[in-house]
Amino acid sequence: MIADFQDWARSRQDRIEASLQLLLPPSNVPPERLHDAMRYTVLGGGKRVRPLLAFAAGELSDASAERVTIAGAAVELIHAYSLVHDDLPCMDNDVLRRGKPTCHIEYGEAIALLAGDSLQSLAFQLLAEHTVADIPQIQLEMIKRLAQAAGSRGMAGGQAVDLASVGATLSLPELEFMHIHKTGALIRAAVMLGAYCGSGLKESELMNLDHFAKRIGLAFQVVDDVLDAEASTATLGKTAGKDAENNKPTYVSILGRGQARDLAEGLRRDAYQALEGFGEKADRLRQVTDFIIQREF
Amino acid sequence: MIADFQDWARSRQDRIEASLQLLLPPSNVPPERLHDAMRYTVLGGGKRVRPLLAFAAGELSDASAERVTIAGAAVELIHAYSLVHDDLPCMDNDVLRRGKPTCHIEYGEAIALLAGDSLQSLAFQLLAEHTVADIPQIQLEMIKRLAQAAGSRGMAGGQAVDLASVGATLSLPELEFMHIHKTGALIRAAVMLGAYCGSGLKESELMNLDHFAKRIGLAFQVVDDVLDAEASTATLGKTAGKDAENNKPTYVSILGRGQARDLAEGLRRDAYQALEGFGEKADRLRQVTDFIIQREF
Repeated sequence: MIADFQDWARSRQDRIEASLQLLLPPSNVPPERLHDAMRYTVLGGGKRVRPLLAFAAGELSDASAERVTIAGAAVELIHAYSLVHDDLPCMDNDVLRRGKPTCHIEYGEAIALLAGDSLQSLAFQLLAEHTVADIPQIQLEMIKRLAQAAGSRGMAGGQAVDLASVGATLSLPELEFMHIHKTGALIRAAVMLGAYCGSGLKESELMNLDHFAKRIGLAFQVVDDVLDAEASTATLGKTAGKDAENNKPTYVSILGRGQARDLAEGLRRDAYQALEGFGEKADRLRQVTDFIIQREF
Repeated sequence: MIADFQDWARSRQDRIEASLQLLLPPSNVPPERLHDAMRYTVLGGGKRVRPLLAFAAGELSDASAERVTIAGAAVELIHAYSLVHDDLPCMDNDVLRRGKPTCHIEYGEAIALLAGDSLQSLAFQLLAEHTVADIPQIQLEMIKRLAQAAGSRGMAGGQAVDLASVGATLSLPELEFMHIHKTGALIRAAVMLGAYCGSGLKESELMNLDHFAKRIGLAFQVVDDVLDAEASTATLGKTAGKDAENNKPTYVSILGRGQARDLAEGLRRDAYQALEGFGEKADRLRQVTDFIIQREF
């Protein structure tokens, strides 16, 4: 099963990579430098966890690979834009990402800012100009969900809370609030958008799926915190130990590594439970869940 | 007619202001500081030229005020986000906007960055969650147009060219290319979105309207350049003479003030011509055109 999962994930990652290649503006179209920076940021890196979640969720609703590829690419563009802006000097001021210099190191701050802005626009453009659902009304629902997940009551809002938390002592509920927004919202959107690409899911099934997505979104961040505390910069492909260095509260700083791992395991159990009603159709989602939790543990 | 136009414009501006008040997240919802910054940026200022264009174009297709208000607000949010990011130190590094300290002066760079990002997300959210057209398919077309207008082949792309032009000698066609993207694309989107809120326009009429929108978008920038060269900081509400100071090519620096004004007048004639087939229904659009060209001349 593991080998099978790896093949499946590889083929989906390749598919997303190939699509992003085509969907991003070519480097030889003006403004060339901006387009270069967008491609530099998005292509050739990343585990594409969010698209994988979209593909796995799409299996529940028999979504076509073509549709999920576009939806997954849109979510990945939002994720990529957030990384570019997050790495800027006025935010985390990071120089290394996915083993390469960050976008502003390579292209300067102004172009990095505009590249992030343009990636966000492109994400919504993709969901509006391709057929990604049975009917346009569902596409509007998908755009709404992605916009909410990205905005001030989603990812960007989580970043704002994150900023305010530097040097602060957060309680576990406060830390959870931050991560539900900062990381969880977009993970949740990835799962739901994948499911919306297909059809036939009942309202109660969508609710269960949403519950699954919330748990897995939080688990993702808990694991990220553990990895950041344990891994070396080389393994991580980004500057390790930044959180401790920046005096940011994390699951590890609040709970310790052991309890943080236990929390991730608990969230996995919850996530599995939410999938029970889907039977074998949810096997891929279970595998992606394991992939997320066990990443480098 | 002028008094009538002023009443009309005032009532539409009030309507947009009241809607933005409601559509923006309240300041007492977390993350409060981010929401504060978003409201600070958007509310209580600006001539709302883009929403006015949307309202005037909506008269051609008998669009309801409710729909155009949402569409106009969405365009205005994109405009507002671009101002916040444009004022950042890594871009124009400006401290004054609409007579107030710029967002990053008031809230810090990180929050200003996130406020801009969140305003962009909110614009697309509005167009997806409200009924702004007869059918969802048209709403998708509106979202696509706004996303294209905002992105790397629209406004953000124009900003990138603008950055690259500092200290450079541009030809008139190069300057035009820059402004068609930087300012023109969003003006064009405002006009087309306003028209899409209603119904009944033929393909040929939409094409004429689009031609009108392109001319007026360029005229807007030509007038802006003249104003920047002539006006004082107090009149303008933003730092005057920045273009010359930053050694940026403008219509005034290339053509001189006299010819730049002539160019604006020529563009107005073109714009009027494109509206000929619409008869009296286009009177508001003609008035807004005059308003844009004659602003402070």
